[in-house]
Amino acid sequence: MDYQAILEEIHHEVQPLIGSGRIPDYIPPLAAVPCDKFGMALKMTDGEAFSIGDADEKFSIQSISKLFSLTLALRLSGTSIWERIGREPSGTPFNSLFQLEYEKGIPRNPFINAGALVLADIILSHTSNAMDEYLSFLRLLTDADSVLFSQTVFQTEADAGHRNRALANLLKDFGNLQHRVEEVLNFYFSQCAVMMSCKELALACLFLAGQGVSSIAGKVVNLRRAKRINAIMLTCGTYDAAGDFAYRVGLPGKSGVGGGIVAVVPGVMTLCVWSPALNSAGNSYLGTKALELFTTKTRLSIF
Amino acid sequence: MDYQAILEEIHHEVQPLIGSGRIPDYIPPLAAVPCDKFGMALKMTDGEAFSIGDADEKFSIQSISKLFSLTLALRLSGTSIWERIGREPSGTPFNSLFQLEYEKGIPRNPFINAGALVLADIILSHTSNAMDEYLSFLRLLTDADSVLFSQTVFQTEADAGHRNRALANLLKDFGNLQHRVEEVLNFYFSQCAVMMSCKELALACLFLAGQGVSSIAGKVVNLRRAKRINAIMLTCGTYDAAGDFAYRVGLPGKSGVGGGIVAVVPGVMTLCVWSPALNSAGNSYLGTKALELFTTKTRLSIF
Amino acid sequence: MDYQAILEEIHHEVQPLIGSGRIPDYIPPLAAVPCDKFGMALKMTDGEAFSIGDADEKFSIQSISKLFSLTLALRLSGTSIWERIGREPSGTPFNSLFQLEYEKGIPRNPFINAGALVLADIILSHTSNAMDEYLSFLRLLTDADSVLFSQTVFQTEADAGHRNRALANLLKDFGNLQHRVEEVLNFYFSQCAVMMSCKELALACLFLAGQGVSSIAGKVVNLRRAKRINAIMLTCGTYDAAGDFAYRVGLPGKSGVGGGIVAVVPGVMTLCVWSPALNSAGNSYLGTKALELFTTKTRLSIF
Amino acid sequence: MDYQAILEEIHHEVQPLIGSGRIPDYIPPLAAVPCDKFGMALKMTDGEAFSIGDADEKFSIQSISKLFSLTLALRLSGTSIWERIGREPSGTPFNSLFQLEYEKGIPRNPFINAGALVLADIILSHTSNAMDEYLSFLRLLTDADSVLFSQTVFQTEADAGHRNRALANLLKDFGNLQHRVEEVLNFYFSQCAVMMSCKELALACLFLAGQGVSSIAGKVVNLRRAKRINAIMLTCGTYDAAGDFAYRVGLPGKSGVGGGIVAVVPGVMTLCVWSPALNSAGNSYLGTKALELFTTKTRLSIF
Repeated sequence: MDYQAILEEIHHEVQPLIGSGRIPDYIPPLAAVPCDKFGMALKMTDGEAFSIGDADEKFSIQSISKLFSLTLALRLSGTSIWERIGREPSGTPFNSLFQLEYEKGIPRNPFINAGALVLADIILSHTSNAMDEYLSFLRLLTDADSVLFSQTVFQTEADAGHRNRALANLLKDFGNLQHRVEEVLNFYFSQCAVMMSCKELALACLFLAGQGVSSIAGKVVNLRRAKRINAIMLTCGTYDAAGDFAYRVGLPGKSGVGGGIVAVVPGVMTLCVWSPALNSAGNSYLGTKALELFTTKTRLSIF
Repeated sequence: MDYQAILEEIHHEVQPLIGSGRIPDYIPPLAAVPCDKFGMALKMTDGEAFSIGDADEKFSIQSISKLFSLTLALRLSGTSIWERIGREPSGTPFNSLFQLEYEKGIPRNPFINAGALVLADIILSHTSNAMDEYLSFLRLLTDADSVLFSQTVFQTEADAGHRNRALANLLKDFGNLQHRVEEVLNFYFSQCAVMMSCKELALACLFLAGQGVSSIAGKVVNLRRAKRINAIMLTCGTYDAAGDFAYRVGLPGKSGVGGGIVAVVPGVMTLCVWSPALNSAGNSYLGTKALELFTTKTRLSIF
Repeated sequence: MDYQAILEEIHHEVQPLIGSGRIPDYIPPLAAVPCDKFGMALKMTDGEAFSIGDADEKFSIQSISKLFSLTLALRLSGTSIWERIGREPSGTPFNSLFQLEYEKGIPRNPFINAGALVLADIILSHTSNAMDEYLSFLRLLTDADSVLFSQTVFQTEADAGHRNRALANLLKDFGNLQHRVEEVLNFYFSQCAVMMSCKELALACLFLAGQGVSSIAGKVVNLRRAKRINAIMLTCGTYDAAGDFAYRVGLPGKSGVGGGIVAVVPGVMTLCVWSPALNSAGNSYLGTKALELFTTKTRLSIF
Repeated sequence: MDYQAILEEIHHEVQPLIGSGRIPDYIPPLAAVPCDKFGMALKMTDGEAFSIGDADEKFSIQSISKLFSLTLALRLSGTSIWERIGREPSGTPFNSLFQLEYEKGIPRNPFINAGALVLADIILSHTSNAMDEYLSFLRLLTDADSVLFSQTVFQTEADAGHRNRALANLLKDFGNLQHRVEEVLNFYFSQCAVMMSCKELALACLFLAGQGVSSIAGKVVNLRRAKRINAIMLTCGTYDAAGDFAYRVGLPGKSGVGGGIVAVVPGVMTLCVWSPALNSAGNSYLGTKALELFTTKTRLSIF
């Protein structure tokens, strides 16, 4: 298949949609990104790569970081993490306290904020400098020297993060955080503030298309674990719109409010698309549309 | 791959688990089924078929009927059904009133009871004798003369169905049922009481593995619709355990409290497994285990 | 105190408010009542009576019936009723299914619809013709031959009562109804359809101001029980606005969507006010205002 | 009435109940209080006073502080406080996040923790040193030099207060706190840690029995406001058990997890009872019983 031609078609077809969706205004550094940005990158398990648009521009990965947290926590702690986090879709918005209270401090899955806070706590138990470890892991996955997080984005989110602070305190109250609330939050906000490009993110996820193995990083996790991370992405990866994303796109995917979405075609490739304006469910408006066009054109939906 | 050998291995490996799980006691005709029953059937898109155990024994399909309701409603009414039903995992038990009230009478997805009641109402609007139409559709899918429903099971569930009656009245109150409550309920309970075997159910779902086309029934739905039904099955098909089922089995599947589970390997085959004792999420205990063994042995998980 | 003069002042002061509030449109016979109706009646424990406006006009008592159901159920069954109904304010609208599901079929208090359905079920267990018993009890309380219920109101509510039917089926599912759902509902709808005037209602409640004893009916309940019914009225008598009613009016009161409100000044008198347009909480708009004026002018608030 | 004799009777009758209930173990300084402590004090509007048992021993007033916060906030800010706090019973436990999230950051009433945090924020807006102001107000009410808060209790609660910290962050997220979260929490925890005796508390509430006027402090609030504070106490003062407290005791009351309960007989007297073991609703076990005995013996229930 001529993937470059398909990317060009998609790029062309999403142009009229620029201006749709909304850029979130509660994180000023994100609000400053021009709404006409659009980038897309593919990375094949055989090593080939394709891209279009602003695929080299770094953006704030936000909740896509949860995918790397999950993988890192599984590497450090194994399946024992499931004693502290569920694996079911949440049915409520990604930052709801209601469900956490109702289910007595066990987050429904690792991809809602409460789940990622528990992942952060788990990683903190296994390393003396968690953020260094986290960035090292991203460098391993991408073979890049340069993976960093934005101090500005971090600070803005730390200052405004009252709801995440509420979640973390509730987790602490239920005994599901071992470290100090502020320590967990700092690590969590730092992860969200990591800056990466579409090309880097497609590369970083390649192990999920390769049964756990990446041409760059070698064996990241085993086959079974790679499949299971994909399964969780499919059922829980796009907040309260996981059902709709599966229905429209038909691929495991993980989105962030920075406008990025990574997706996996198991055995074939990873994709990353980026455009900052979001739909009502908090996923990139153009990004979701671009992925839907991609699976329609290529018939690569897993279904 | 030698599927018959794999079925035999699975049959052997689940033997020690007989006696685990619980047979539901609130539907007497289901409670009377011996707990050591186990059947499994595969049907390949190329026409081949494999089976083991009690694969010819008919059982009550219960919620698997929702899969056929959804397909039939889509054939009769197209995507307009999504104005009255959502497509998101529910995050609460399959018969919860809470979510329906909170979301003002729009069921979260077609595979919870409230969603299936709306499907029943939609089908009732398109036909003068809905149950005949429903059974005809099942006969078309299976090429069988003999698809029937059990009057005993129907009557038992109709008599005891207070919670479904509560759901239907709440839907009516929100204006999301056009027909009389009792008419909708009768049709719904009749569907649940349909008796089919593993072989018949694997056959009936074959179009979902064949991009909408079945070697027996011809084109049932188009490619896109088949993929989308599979997507909904994956995110919503096993009640409140959809995430765990995706994680363990890695296939779109739909279960019923009668102990049956159908699953789809897109492009390859359909499966049906049956064993009456259920796990805590209401899915067949041995059935879930058998499917997990199947994808582990064959690596046919979609992830 | 010159109560007649106070009633005249109140009547005068509420005139400019006629036209405020909304007449409920979901019960056609109620919707047909002119919005400028206003009546008010006082009945003193010493036998004196005062009234103004349309105090002799009969209206549909609706939820005020729950007060008589509670009293009758306590007479028939004693404090054992509290095994099946709570005594706490509900914090949610009067016809919510959510709370009933969350609390496993035990209604929060006798004055929400679910609670009154359980009261109806209890009364049905003690009598062969419950509605005759109920009307006899009202005749005893009012010394009137003529207490009847409106067949038209009954039929309209029975036809449209999907939400009450949902509540009753959920109660049945939880095992908190012993009689058939339709039998309970018929009795419940009949009670709501009872037609009484302000004067009759003030009379009927007199025992609550008289430590359980009424000059007409004699000893209805004992002192302790009368006080406790008043307490429940204060905390639960006006749907989701009990706190606001206590704050503004400062008397135990019970309202109905027919526009009536009865209130009790313990040791002194009972009041009934009627005006059909309702405020957003479902209580009579002018009625609430009139009672607030009354306690402000007379300083008869219990607080 | 011979109130001293009645107190002695009550003291005698509660003796067999010593040992019932549970002392909360999550606040170590409270857990250290011997469970056989019992004190009770009455203060009449005419100046007379009665007491029994440990009525002079100071204990941690905990949530009784909310009563003084409400009064102080009303004095400083008037009825504008009702734009930020509701007046309805909560129907859920006193520290629930669910309701606060569902109702978008408006606490249901001033006597749940979230409501008291908003009161603290309001008081902080009107004074440069809020805790000094708060203690001055208590000294004014009690004519005592010595009202202080316990640094130990404060520190323990501040360290362990994850759930209150979660509530405060959620309020901040909804824009219903103007000051820094930690500033509000410090003031709130300081209030809870105030140490007072039964005699002091009975005195401090005297204005609520005296139509807003206390023989010691003079006019604290106006008549209408005093009645309304009593009304809120009755419907919301004892957490999730307000209905039951009204039913059993029949007086406006406010309890704290330190084991104290204050109650008001409008026009007649205030009461304070203290015993540290709590019932399942978080109110003093012996205290509730003692008040129930008191209104039964004296017939002073407001109903």
